[in-house]
Amino acid sequence: MSTREWKVYLSGEIHSDWRTRIAEGIRAAGLPVRLDTPVCVHEDSDDCGAAILGAEDHAFWHDRKGATMNAIRTRTLIGEADVVVVRFGEKYRQWNAAFDAGYASALGKVLIILQQPDHDHALKEVDAASLAVTRTPEQVAQILRYVLDGSLPG
Amino acid sequence: MSTREWKVYLSGEIHSDWRTRIAEGIRAAGLPVRLDTPVCVHEDSDDCGAAILGAEDHAFWHDRKGATMNAIRTRTLIGEADVVVVRFGEKYRQWNAAFDAGYASALGKVLIILQQPDHDHALKEVDAASLAVTRTPEQVAQILRYVLDGSLPG
Amino acid sequence: MSTREWKVYLSGEIHSDWRTRIAEGIRAAGLPVRLDTPVCVHEDSDDCGAAILGAEDHAFWHDRKGATMNAIRTRTLIGEADVVVVRFGEKYRQWNAAFDAGYASALGKVLIILQQPDHDHALKEVDAASLAVTRTPEQVAQILRYVLDGSLPG
Amino acid sequence: MSTREWKVYLSGEIHSDWRTRIAEGIRAAGLPVRLDTPVCVHEDSDDCGAAILGAEDHAFWHDRKGATMNAIRTRTLIGEADVVVVRFGEKYRQWNAAFDAGYASALGKVLIILQQPDHDHALKEVDAASLAVTRTPEQVAQILRYVLDGSLPG
Amino acid sequence: MSTREWKVYLSGEIHSDWRTRIAEGIRAAGLPVRLDTPVCVHEDSDDCGAAILGAEDHAFWHDRKGATMNAIRTRTLIGEADVVVVRFGEKYRQWNAAFDAGYASALGKVLIILQQPDHDHALKEVDAASLAVTRTPEQVAQILRYVLDGSLPG
Amino acid sequence: MSTREWKVYLSGEIHSDWRTRIAEGIRAAGLPVRLDTPVCVHEDSDDCGAAILGAEDHAFWHDRKGATMNAIRTRTLIGEADVVVVRFGEKYRQWNAAFDAGYASALGKVLIILQQPDHDHALKEVDAASLAVTRTPEQVAQILRYVLDGSLPG
Amino acid sequence: MSTREWKVYLSGEIHSDWRTRIAEGIRAAGLPVRLDTPVCVHEDSDDCGAAILGAEDHAFWHDRKGATMNAIRTRTLIGEADVVVVRFGEKYRQWNAAFDAGYASALGKVLIILQQPDHDHALKEVDAASLAVTRTPEQVAQILRYVLDGSLPG
Amino acid sequence: MSTREWKVYLSGEIHSDWRTRIAEGIRAAGLPVRLDTPVCVHEDSDDCGAAILGAEDHAFWHDRKGATMNAIRTRTLIGEADVVVVRFGEKYRQWNAAFDAGYASALGKVLIILQQPDHDHALKEVDAASLAVTRTPEQVAQILRYVLDGSLPG
Repeated sequence: MSTREWKVYLSGEIHSDWRTRIAEGIRAAGLPVRLDTPVCVHEDSDDCGAAILGAEDHAFWHDRKGATMNAIRTRTLIGEADVVVVRFGEKYRQWNAAFDAGYASALGKVLIILQQPDHDHALKEVDAASLAVTRTPEQVAQILRYVLDGSLPG
Repeated sequence: MSTREWKVYLSGEIHSDWRTRIAEGIRAAGLPVRLDTPVCVHEDSDDCGAAILGAEDHAFWHDRKGATMNAIRTRTLIGEADVVVVRFGEKYRQWNAAFDAGYASALGKVLIILQQPDHDHALKEVDAASLAVTRTPEQVAQILRYVLDGSLPG
Repeated sequence: MSTREWKVYLSGEIHSDWRTRIAEGIRAAGLPVRLDTPVCVHEDSDDCGAAILGAEDHAFWHDRKGATMNAIRTRTLIGEADVVVVRFGEKYRQWNAAFDAGYASALGKVLIILQQPDHDHALKEVDAASLAVTRTPEQVAQILRYVLDGSLPG
Repeated sequence: MSTREWKVYLSGEIHSDWRTRIAEGIRAAGLPVRLDTPVCVHEDSDDCGAAILGAEDHAFWHDRKGATMNAIRTRTLIGEADVVVVRFGEKYRQWNAAFDAGYASALGKVLIILQQPDHDHALKEVDAASLAVTRTPEQVAQILRYVLDGSLPG
Repeated sequence: MSTREWKVYLSGEIHSDWRTRIAEGIRAAGLPVRLDTPVCVHEDSDDCGAAILGAEDHAFWHDRKGATMNAIRTRTLIGEADVVVVRFGEKYRQWNAAFDAGYASALGKVLIILQQPDHDHALKEVDAASLAVTRTPEQVAQILRYVLDGSLPG
Repeated sequence: MSTREWKVYLSGEIHSDWRTRIAEGIRAAGLPVRLDTPVCVHEDSDDCGAAILGAEDHAFWHDRKGATMNAIRTRTLIGEADVVVVRFGEKYRQWNAAFDAGYASALGKVLIILQQPDHDHALKEVDAASLAVTRTPEQVAQILRYVLDGSLPG
Repeated sequence: MSTREWKVYLSGEIHSDWRTRIAEGIRAAGLPVRLDTPVCVHEDSDDCGAAILGAEDHAFWHDRKGATMNAIRTRTLIGEADVVVVRFGEKYRQWNAAFDAGYASALGKVLIILQQPDHDHALKEVDAASLAVTRTPEQVAQILRYVLDGSLPG
Repeated sequence: MSTREWKVYLSGEIHSDWRTRIAEGIRAAGLPVRLDTPVCVHEDSDDCGAAILGAEDHAFWHDRKGATMNAIRTRTLIGEADVVVVRFGEKYRQWNAAFDAGYASALGKVLIILQQPDHDHALKEVDAASLAVTRTPEQVAQILRYVLDGSLPG
């Protein structure tokens, strides 16, 4: 009997250590999970299109070339994921995170949201499309542990 | 030979008259377009779940009941649309709009974004998934006119 | 601009007047809704296969011929519905209702459940797959009214 | 030439040893089958949502948090299964089992039902959507053996 | 409330009056059914490709041009049908009928088979994919009547 | 019994009268066909993006804005078509026509190619994905006539 | 770089050695191909349902139980195949083979037909849905060799 | 944690060394990529059908047999690819390349175009369906490197 590997994509905020903390929880529990992420180096993610394909005069097309290049990674990995975790942080507009959540939802992916209570009202439609709303990365890891091997914390 | 009716869903900001201006442009041009929208009365949209199904003690579940009830309308109409226009306004986080854009994109819908240049960078991934980025409701109507009957402005 | 007709399938319990009460609510509100139902005459629904295709010696195959004949109607209409309402009554096992709910859910249909609080725990997975859990047929009609034209009761 | 691994999901009743008996039959025959199941510890399955995400005041939302958490596992594994076996036991309403059967059926999964003759009439629609109705776990294992390597019992 | 039109495709044997008898049953019962068929003039169906696109030296390619031209009609109408009735007659190999049955089955269409008992064993896999095995065109019409308005014969 | 309207999309070369000749054939035969086309005014099709959304400094992005705007029409109408006719003319590279053919093919649309024999070798893969290779617009109209009502020419 | 394994399903006639000859060609060429087949022991395939699930009084239901049990294997393996080869032999009606061909075709599988010229006219629709019509098992192996590694015979 | 293998299909021009240069870039960067291609020996690709299945009198059918045989490989590998790179060279009509681009696009594959600036206008619709337009094979390799491990050149 084979062991199933779960594919989990971690979308959203890139300025805190939440991805690391989920990864640690998974490693500690020994779960067969493959974690995928976007490119999390902010400037590279912004400039990748121009860096490889050449500079643009206008910011709009500079951004476009970067965004479509990042979409190669994002769409492929979300398209293959079993679970998409979307983290909304304290700052910035994070429309990209919400876009990923909608995209994953329409594909029928399991959605887990990670956000703080002060965003509950603003995120109510996104939360309603998810199967779990979490407050800490550790809760995400605990959910994956329970889902994969049935173990509950404590 | 029948006339094709185009189904256009107008998602996003509900505090300005952009939907009306698109509707006027369509009417003026005599285009066979059915416009659909979310419920645009803010309080009703917030409270519909509790109003029909009963109050909740906690804001989180009050919001959940409203969000899922609105999703009955939103998912059905986006799922049927040929074109989804998503408007990002000046204020608020508007995660719901970005979620709808991602949702529509994953379903393969034509996406048209309506937003101001100061949001270009923050919306670059959303814009990159669209087939047109517009600045005024009139441009949206002009696009629909061109797409439906080939007429260009001026 | 055309008027959208919503297709609503009413599945489940056939011994009370809940379908009629929803239909009345829809008629009173003047909503463009097409209601579809299974064949609700219990004996006909049981015996249709044998009546048309010939009797069987064994109850198992008698039931099979009836069940597949009813499935012609059920699968087609659920497959076309925008919204599937599933009613769980007070009596009987009603596995067919739960099967329809699962079937509709996997097709991505909007699911509305109509059931009493004493079944909440037993129906928790079914409820969790729905967008609304209702207690009265009038609430179902009110939801449809809100979803279609934005009107709230009272 | 590789060996195909068959993915078989075992849904339904959790109070008898039927899953173990199928697993034993598979092991004895040396079949390349991966068996997946829901979490079968009743209390954990009920309380997982609250245990990880925090308690709720109302049973309805306590149940909802648990049900959606379990759905992460259930939907993913049913969505990947080749064969879904659904067991209906002697007791309880088991709407969840019937829901899983409908869900699997709409996804085009092979459905095998395991139930006793006194439920034949109540399960006739569920049975009609299956490719085999069995009475013992051993029959399920025999079917898998025949399907995988062509061996018949005896 | 609109009336649903059912789309029924009648595939298979073209040398008896079975299609007419089904049509008469439908007309007598006043059912909202659109019946579609292949081109039933044998020689035209064989020669259409060469007649329009030019003769071929070899029978194989003559047949190919005709078969693909007929497929324009067949695939489109089966792809749109709610119900596909496949009639196996007394004579000929009728592989085309069995092909249509398999094609419709994979698309999830409702399949009704019309054949005589002496073919039961040879057609057992085809029958098993259907929701009804009938012996007379009148039974097909009776099924449609029951499915559409719940009326049973007699 | 309703009359089925066939949706036929006419893609490709825009410098000869082939679309008109197909339309005339359809009109003469009284066939219920809706013909859809791209915008066939060459300059408008090139400049639509800039005309509505504003000029670009670089031809590449000028073209991009036009191409995506035209894609709103093209993708929607091909996505809805029953039959896609693709015409390859004598001149130009016509990669857009071949792209449309591939796009339609992957969607499972019926493909009819209209081209001259000197292109047979260059178009062999495109032809092989079609259900008919024609030489004149009149042949296309004759095919549609045969497919819709069974009439052969002459 | 991994090696791709091709999954090839061999459907149809079970009374000659054609499957063995294809397997030998594949082995000789060292191709990474997994060959799948139905259960090819005629009596077991006929009686499997009754042998495991119990005897039936009527041949019709005896056949039904066997046919649905075999469908567990057939549908799963065809559903996973890259290529479906369907062999029509000299004898019997072989409706099951034609059904499999139609089923595979609607799923978009690559279809290769193996049949003799005297069946060309009767099989013209089946042939037209295939990508190759072959006369010998060796040709099937040669096609697979060419498709996998580009080698042509001779 | 497993390593994801990316599947990249290289379609189009077969007269220069662009595939080799991409392969070298991938090897140098140590990326887990499986590269697939059509059969790139021009004469074999033209004659494969006749070589295996027998000669044809007419070039049209000679070409058809070859084209459908190559389609076995092409459709399967494009259907499985994550990324489809389409190269347009300096010469020939290359309709096959544009067809593959359209085919891949309709399947939702990531499309990368490799072409020179003098073709920009002729390829504007194809480019607009892609996520990157490149000028050198090295840029394709750099994109894959960035997408897979986040490294930018220089």
